[in-house]
Amino acid sequence: MTRLTMVTVVLLMVTAGMAQQVPRGGQTVFSPEIHDDNTVTFRIRAPKAIKVEVTGDFLAPVRVEMAQGEYWVPGRGEMKENKEGVWEFTTPEPLASELYSYSFIVDRMQVNDPSNVMMIRDVGSVKSVFIIPGDPGDLYSVNDVPHGTVARRWYDSPTLKEQRRITVYTPPGYENSKQIYPVFYLLHGSGGDEEAWISLGRTAQIMDNLIAQGKAKPMIVVMPNGHTQNQAAPGESSRHYLPAMGGGQRQAVASMEDSFGDIIAFVESNYRVKKNQANRAIAGLSMGGMHSSAISAQYTKTFDYVGIFSAPPISIWGAGSKEEADKRIEEFVNKLKAQQANGFKLYWIACGNTDFLYQGVIESMKKMDEIGFKYTYRESGEGHIWKNWRIYLSEFVPMLFQ
Amino acid sequence: MTRLTMVTVVLLMVTAGMAQQVPRGGQTVFSPEIHDDNTVTFRIRAPKAIKVEVTGDFLAPVRVEMAQGEYWVPGRGEMKENKEGVWEFTTPEPLASELYSYSFIVDRMQVNDPSNVMMIRDVGSVKSVFIIPGDPGDLYSVNDVPHGTVARRWYDSPTLKEQRRITVYTPPGYENSKQIYPVFYLLHGSGGDEEAWISLGRTAQIMDNLIAQGKAKPMIVVMPNGHTQNQAAPGESSRHYLPAMGGGQRQAVASMEDSFGDIIAFVESNYRVKKNQANRAIAGLSMGGMHSSAISAQYTKTFDYVGIFSAPPISIWGAGSKEEADKRIEEFVNKLKAQQANGFKLYWIACGNTDFLYQGVIESMKKMDEIGFKYTYRESGEGHIWKNWRIYLSEFVPMLFQ
Repeated sequence: MTRLTMVTVVLLMVTAGMAQQVPRGGQTVFSPEIHDDNTVTFRIRAPKAIKVEVTGDFLAPVRVEMAQGEYWVPGRGEMKENKEGVWEFTTPEPLASELYSYSFIVDRMQVNDPSNVMMIRDVGSVKSVFIIPGDPGDLYSVNDVPHGTVARRWYDSPTLKEQRRITVYTPPGYENSKQIYPVFYLLHGSGGDEEAWISLGRTAQIMDNLIAQGKAKPMIVVMPNGHTQNQAAPGESSRHYLPAMGGGQRQAVASMEDSFGDIIAFVESNYRVKKNQANRAIAGLSMGGMHSSAISAQYTKTFDYVGIFSAPPISIWGAGSKEEADKRIEEFVNKLKAQQANGFKLYWIACGNTDFLYQGVIESMKKMDEIGFKYTYRESGEGHIWKNWRIYLSEFVPMLFQ
Repeated sequence: MTRLTMVTVVLLMVTAGMAQQVPRGGQTVFSPEIHDDNTVTFRIRAPKAIKVEVTGDFLAPVRVEMAQGEYWVPGRGEMKENKEGVWEFTTPEPLASELYSYSFIVDRMQVNDPSNVMMIRDVGSVKSVFIIPGDPGDLYSVNDVPHGTVARRWYDSPTLKEQRRITVYTPPGYENSKQIYPVFYLLHGSGGDEEAWISLGRTAQIMDNLIAQGKAKPMIVVMPNGHTQNQAAPGESSRHYLPAMGGGQRQAVASMEDSFGDIIAFVESNYRVKKNQANRAIAGLSMGGMHSSAISAQYTKTFDYVGIFSAPPISIWGAGSKEEADKRIEEFVNKLKAQQANGFKLYWIACGNTDFLYQGVIESMKKMDEIGFKYTYRESGEGHIWKNWRIYLSEFVPMLFQ
C-alpha cells in the first residue's frame, strides 16, 4: 500500500466516509447544555421550520380539556431561531435534580433531540433524556461504585408453554462469591416490558448506589415480562411486536398471576438465593402493582414484602360487569384476610395525589381498614409518572430484608 | 370501594388514563405492514404536512455529488396522502429477506415511524427497523430455539484505571453445565459501543440460531467498548456522553490495544473458558477490524482466528504525517511476519466492493502477499453497512474452533 493512499484513506475516513455513522443533525449543535447553575439550553437545527417548541416533564404541566375530561399534559417552551437556523430555548429557572425527558415539536411534528444520544425507550416511543445532578439525580447515575450485572435471560414457562425473556440484576460480587441472596421481584406497568425498570426505572443504578451507601442489602432483582400475551420486548421477540396495550402479539395462554410460579421456580433453581418468605419481596407499578397484590395473595406464605406503586391493591381490571367486579372484590378481600392471617412484614402502598388511580387506591385502603389489614401508605405529589416510580423504588428497597 | 368507582377506574384506565403510555401517533396507523408477498407499506399520520417521503436501506441507493466526492445515500420514496391525513408508500417490488432500517422525512424533518416500536440505536441515532423473513432475515430473528444469555457487566481495567462496561453472550446451557467454552472477542466500529453488535449486529440471535442448527460451536462472545476515551454506552456512563467520533468523554489513558489484556484477564478469571490460542478468536468491523489486526499481532500466540470486517488490516489511522504512516506500515509488516511465524489457523478479511475502505483493504492484502502472509479474502457487494457485517459474522462464526 502506498503512503499516499493510506493517508488518503485515513483522511477520508475521518472527514467523510464515516458520515453515515455521525449522529443525525451533525456534531455542531450542542444540546442539551446543562449550565453550572442547572439551567438548561436546548438546541435544534431546523432552518426551514416556521415554529419550533420544546416539550418535556421539566416544564410545568398544563391542564387541558378533552372530550373525556381534563388532563395534565407537559408544557411547551417556544424556541427562538438564530442566524444559523438553530432554534434555542433556555429554562428561565434552574431545574431541580431529576431525570427528565423531552422532545421538540417542529412545525407540529414531534421529534427527539438529534444532538442527544441519551435516549430511552418508554413503551412505543423513544425519548431524549438528561439528568440534573444532585438528589435524586445522582442516585439514577452511574457513579464510581461497584456495579452489579444486568442479564437478559430466557426461562422456560411450562404454564405458558414457551420460553420467555427476563431481566435479572445480580449485585456486585455475585459472580465471585458463594453468598446466598434474597430476591426482589419487580414488575412493570401496562405499557412496559422486561426492559422498563432497567431503562427509565434506572434500577441497576439505584441498586448499585443504595448498596454502595449501605442503605440496601445486596439482593437479586428479577424483572419479568408481565404481558403473558407477549413473549419479550420489541426486537427480542419472534413475533411481530405490538405493545400489549395495542392488543399484544396473540391471546395469552395463562395470566401473569397463574404463570408466576414458573418464574420463582426458574430463579430458585438458577441463582444462589434464599428460598423462604423472609427473603422474597415483590413490587410493581400500575398494572405491576395489581399483579403484586394478586400474586402475593395467591402464593400464600411466599412474600414477606409487598410494594404497590400507583395502583389500587384491590383491582377489578378487566371485570366485564358490576356483578363480576363485586364478586372479585369480595373474593379478593377474603384472600387479603388469609394473607393477613398468614403474616408478612411489610405491605407498602405508594401513590401520587394527582394520579388518575388515586381514588381507587384510597377506596382500596378503606376496604383494607375494614378488615384490619396492616399496610403502610406513602403519598407523594404528582401522578402516574416514572419520576414517582423511581422515588418509590428508592424508598422501598432500603426497607427490604432488614 | 364502591362498585361504580372501581368500574369507573377500569374504564378510565383503559380509555384515557394510560394515554401517556400509548405510542406517539396512536394505534390506528399500522406501519410498517409487511404483506404476504413481502412488499411493504409504510404509513404516517401528518395531516398538516406538505411533503412526506420515506427513506431507508430498502430503497435503491442513489449517488450524490458532494464537496468531498461522490457518495451513495439511501433513496427516497414519495408518500401520498389519503383523506384521513395518513401518508402512505408501498414498495413497488417485494423486498428480499433482510433487516432494514428507515425513517420518514416530513417537510424536511427526519423522524422515526411513530407506529413502529421496533427501534434500534445506531450510534447517536435511533432507527425504525423491520425484518423481512427468509434467508438471512430468519437468522436475525428470535426463533423457537434455546437462547443464550446477554449480560451487561462491568470489569476492572487496571491499565485504564477504571471500571468499564462489557457485553457478554453466554451460549444456551452455560449456567447449567460444567462445560468449558472457547471465547470469541467481537469488536465494534468507530461509531459504536458495547451495545452495537448486540443491537443492529443481532449477535445473540445469530449465535442462538447457528448453534441450534449445529453450524457453530457453543462459544462465549465478548463485546467490549473499544473507545477507551468513553467508559460505556449512553445512559450507562457516569459522564456526559459524547459519541467517540464527536471527541468522546475525555482523553484516553491508554489505547484499546494496550488495555486489551485486562479484558482477556477478566474473561478468563470470570467465565468457564478454554485458555489457549486454539480457543480464542477476535474479529471486528471498521475500527474494530483495525483493532483486531493490531491486537492479534500485539498479543503473540493468543488468537488462532482473526476476522477483519470492512477495514484495512494494515492501518495507519491517526498517523499525523506520511513519515509516521510509513514507519507504522513498516513496523506492522514486521509484526505480521512474526504473527505468521508464530502460526494461526484463520485470518479472514471481508469487504464490500463499494466500501470507502475497499482500496485500503486491497492494498493491505498486496503488502501481505509480498511477505507471504496467509489470509482468506471474502468480497461482498455494497459497502460499509450493518447488512454486510451481519453477513460476515454469520459466515465467520461457523469457521471457529472446528
